Amino acid sequence: MTEPKSKNIVWHKTTVSREERESINGHRGATIWLTGLSGSGKSTIANLMEKALWERGVRSFVLDGDNVRHGLNKDLGFSPKDRTENIRRIGEVAALFTDAGIVNVTAFISPYRADREIARKAMPEGCFIEVYIKCDLDQCEKRDPKGLYKKARAGEIPEFTGISAPYEAPENAELVVDTTGQTPEESLAAILAHLEKTGYIPAA
Amino acid sequence: MTEPKSKNIVWHKTTVSREERESINGHRGATIWLTGLSGSGKSTIANLMEKALWERGVRSFVLDGDNVRHGLNKDLGFSPKDRTENIRRIGEVAALFTDAGIVNVTAFISPYRADREIARKAMPEGCFIEVYIKCDLDQCEKRDPKGLYKKARAGEIPEFTGISAPYEAPENAELVVDTTGQTPEESLAAILAHLEKTGYIPAA
Repeated sequence: MTEPKSKNIVWHKTTVSREERESINGHRGATIWLTGLSGSGKSTIANLMEKALWERGVRSFVLDGDNVRHGLNKDLGFSPKDRTENIRRIGEVAALFTDAGIVNVTAFISPYRADREIARKAMPEGCFIEVYIKCDLDQCEKRDPKGLYKKARAGEIPEFTGISAPYEAPENAELVVDTTGQTPEESLAAILAHLEKTGYIPAA
Repeated sequence: MTEPKSKNIVWHKTTVSREERESINGHRGATIWLTGLSGSGKSTIANLMEKALWERGVRSFVLDGDNVRHGLNKDLGFSPKDRTENIRRIGEVAALFTDAGIVNVTAFISPYRADREIARKAMPEGCFIEVYIKCDLDQCEKRDPKGLYKKARAGEIPEFTGISAPYEAPENAELVVDTTGQTPEESLAAILAHLEKTGYIPAA
């Protein structure tokens, strides 16, 4: 835990622990952190996951890059500094959801390795599952579901990941899912299988 | 919804709605926003609420002023500007928890009326239940569970609510609980009764 800005703070222990929630819920609280290029399929997969988990009785919630930027992080832009603060806050919120016993799925490009590490460290060990949604840039650009690559190529969007800003691929992700030649449903199945195998959720 | 800083954002509809979560959970998603002086009993009541709700099978989670300041808001101090940003972010996080179908209880002094209004407006109408934890300043100062009033009187803490910074009491709170001569258990019972009566949680 990092030292907060004010020293006049007492840490309150909540009276219901994550472990207690987990034992009643029948599944772990965890953050499934999807990272990858725009157009790689993160949001589609996250929404499929939320639905599939919910249908299994697993409490789930999607934190979506686009959605969070309408609320919590609407004061932030896309400069490296703002991207870092964006991911820091989301990591802290994901930690709260994890503590609440929810399987929360985050769908953010989160291009910087160091920022993802900060998010990982915001929660207890074993609660952060990094899933690299790998996809060839060509393929992402062909999909271009929001027309952003076209705008980025035209110079209308500065600092666009993969075009004019870097993407640092994970080196030790818990799972890599290559969506280049895969349907979102196949990616979903791979992630759910991993979560079952590692004991985060019960088998369907 | 306020306009975000970047225009290149598409609003993603999550595939599981709050209403769907609520119908399966058997209770509403809501934010019980406790506001009041330091020492009025907010944290104690919030923790009792979390436990009591959990025992009834109501998904609950406490967002605590002190706790949030170790994580999400550790970059913020206690100036009026930082207090406003503190409450803004918490309101947005509370809105996410509410959308996730959770009864989340927030325990922050939240001294400014305008800031509480911003938190209220961060979520759909009817989801924000403001509970004024009313307590005489004398009584709060007598309790002084963290020794903060003593420090504030000695001038060691600047901008301390009630001493050297204002507290703007709610004018239209959904519920007022006067803890001056009340036990935390009595306050808890009053809040739970209100939530039952208004249909947010089923009767015990």
